[in-house]
Amino acid sequence: MPFLPVDDQLEIISKGTEEVIPLQDLRHKLEFSIKKNKPLVIKLGCDPSRPDLHIGHSVVLQKLRDFQDLGHQAILVIGDFTAMIGDPSERNKTRPQLTLEEAKSNAESYIEQSKVILDVKTLKVLFNSTWLNKMNFSDVIKMSSKYTVARMIERDDFTKRFESKIPISMHEFLYPLAQAMDSVEIRSDVELGGTDQKFNLLVGRDLQREYDQEPQSIITLPLLEGTDGIEKMSKSYDNYIALDDSPEDMYGKLMSIKDSMICKYYKLAVFADKEKVLSVENQLKDTSINPRDIKRDLAKDLVARYYDKDIALKAEQAFDQIFVKKSIPDDISVFILEEDSTILEILMSESLIESKAEGKRLIGQNAIKIDGEVCSDPGHIFSKGSGDLIVKVGKRRFLKISG
Amino acid sequence: MPFLPVDDQLEIISKGTEEVIPLQDLRHKLEFSIKKNKPLVIKLGCDPSRPDLHIGHSVVLQKLRDFQDLGHQAILVIGDFTAMIGDPSERNKTRPQLTLEEAKSNAESYIEQSKVILDVKTLKVLFNSTWLNKMNFSDVIKMSSKYTVARMIERDDFTKRFESKIPISMHEFLYPLAQAMDSVEIRSDVELGGTDQKFNLLVGRDLQREYDQEPQSIITLPLLEGTDGIEKMSKSYDNYIALDDSPEDMYGKLMSIKDSMICKYYKLAVFADKEKVLSVENQLKDTSINPRDIKRDLAKDLVARYYDKDIALKAEQAFDQIFVKKSIPDDISVFILEEDSTILEILMSESLIESKAEGKRLIGQNAIKIDGEVCSDPGHIFSKGSGDLIVKVGKRRFLKISG
Repeated sequence: MPFLPVDDQLEIISKGTEEVIPLQDLRHKLEFSIKKNKPLVIKLGCDPSRPDLHIGHSVVLQKLRDFQDLGHQAILVIGDFTAMIGDPSERNKTRPQLTLEEAKSNAESYIEQSKVILDVKTLKVLFNSTWLNKMNFSDVIKMSSKYTVARMIERDDFTKRFESKIPISMHEFLYPLAQAMDSVEIRSDVELGGTDQKFNLLVGRDLQREYDQEPQSIITLPLLEGTDGIEKMSKSYDNYIALDDSPEDMYGKLMSIKDSMICKYYKLAVFADKEKVLSVENQLKDTSINPRDIKRDLAKDLVARYYDKDIALKAEQAFDQIFVKKSIPDDISVFILEEDSTILEILMSESLIESKAEGKRLIGQNAIKIDGEVCSDPGHIFSKGSGDLIVKVGKRRFLKISG
Repeated sequence: MPFLPVDDQLEIISKGTEEVIPLQDLRHKLEFSIKKNKPLVIKLGCDPSRPDLHIGHSVVLQKLRDFQDLGHQAILVIGDFTAMIGDPSERNKTRPQLTLEEAKSNAESYIEQSKVILDVKTLKVLFNSTWLNKMNFSDVIKMSSKYTVARMIERDDFTKRFESKIPISMHEFLYPLAQAMDSVEIRSDVELGGTDQKFNLLVGRDLQREYDQEPQSIITLPLLEGTDGIEKMSKSYDNYIALDDSPEDMYGKLMSIKDSMICKYYKLAVFADKEKVLSVENQLKDTSINPRDIKRDLAKDLVARYYDKDIALKAEQAFDQIFVKKSIPDDISVFILEEDSTILEILMSESLIESKAEGKRLIGQNAIKIDGEVCSDPGHIFSKGSGDLIVKVGKRRFLKISG
């Protein structure tokens, strides 16, 4: 497959990114790749100790897929070396120590989940223990000599901890170098990562230079906040939409995001084009449109992306069903049906209406619903054996009739 | 050999030290050693990239010897591991990279030179490459996890460099841990070092604790300034007295120290006892005594320590001889003797005297010397074939007569 012209490639590559450093270098690399008809090596590192992929991961994975579609060589570097060591200081509970088996199995699961985004046929998967396990103390000293303490402390989280006197174990300084060695080992041309990985990606760049390689370009992608709209999406915050969530869960979780997150999710979860995002922004400004309806469209788009449109529609219907049930308070009164009774008799006896006249008026206004369905018959009779039914009067009065 | 009682041992051990940390622990160790009739393991690390031993080294070596004399096990740990790596950042020119052969040969030379102080028959010599070469990246991470960045930066020279923004390469943080692993490996009970090594010795203590060992006690010894009285004694400052210097060099170099250093050299170079040091202090206060004479005694004591008293006396005589020659400026005029001539003729022709009468007067005042000997004969004749002779007229006029 011939490569697209540089400008066309750059347009696709740059879309949705936070930073491309340095852009000029990437242009040269692409030119060289076309000239030599040689695909670029695109690195994405992954942490097998957190193998649950969610749509937050889809941002970088989709960018890797973009490179695949442009004919470049995507390499997934499984960080099993550090995952198997874990955090020997036991300060960091989010970094458990994995066995070789767990690391392998998590990596397989990671690849399996990423199939919905990546082209796994051309994907190259490498385990960094392959080369990092071979390094001895002397190699580590040589590697460490290429980097200064001051630059390491510049990493945002290290700076904060250092200044607040929160201990940083010395091995934590070795991890950024270890993953940077991955770039040296695979001679990556480009590395992808979330904005929170920028420092590490730059260390890779520096280390390649020290090992006499052309330094990789780095591309950072924005982080997607979780459904809470506050924290980065993560399983540990329980604010995530998994790539392998059921259509119903995907739809329902998306509906729980804040209105202020709608545009960001349009961009980073369903990768809408500029025009679509602009139109959504306008809709959100239009007070006659309920943001909930825009979110419903977004939720359908998301499910359609990972499944298809029909499944998305069914997920919506299922959601509506559940949503009705969900909109009922937990602590409503229960009326135990002893004998067949009309709706107005029951509502009167439970004081949900003050008179049968009020009940009739409300029914006339379609303001009384049974299990979400409008009740239009003032003589509607509840019979024994009909199970639990929820009666809603107006907006806030509920009664469960247990028949 | 039964061990001496704890208090007697402690008196010998503490003598001349800067710090014993913690003293109480050392007492317990000695008690335990007596109880179990088991010698303590005393560690001294040495850097084979600087194998030229001088009397600055004798301070720690003598302390190690004290432990040997008390029946304990002295271990010399040759730091060949780091010496063979050198400084990969090439920032530090004082740490050259040694080959395996050089490291071995330097170590042998170190031991050979230290024979004048240590009891090499019972000395155990270990090369730290034996265990450090076996460590892989994963071991290094585990080791590094035991220590924090903040504590490492606390090391005096690191603090200064960090604050002055002078780069510290990350591998420099690994060296203190590497030598601390030596303490873990040999399970040292006590480690000796100069005061400039205090930080490293404490890291050894910390690391042993982290590896579930009883932490070593550390003993720091004062540093001996070189003959310039300013810098630490070191070959690179050319202010050193080597352990294998000739008696003449030893004597001569010692004579070049400043008067203010006399007491310190009495303590740290010849290990004089308290009474002697006190008496020297009093002599120095006594203005009727020329400090040069005290220094001559010290110089003789030093040579006698490494050779014997007779050799010390001969060194003094040789020094006196040389001293006279040394007091002649380098750039004096030379008179080439063509025919036998009297001293006054020559001095006249070279304008060292204005008249023969002045010459006679000076001879009468013993103010003319030939090769340091007073000339009392105004008719003294220089003959061809008598070689070079130095004539000194008064205090500042010199002439070399080349016969």
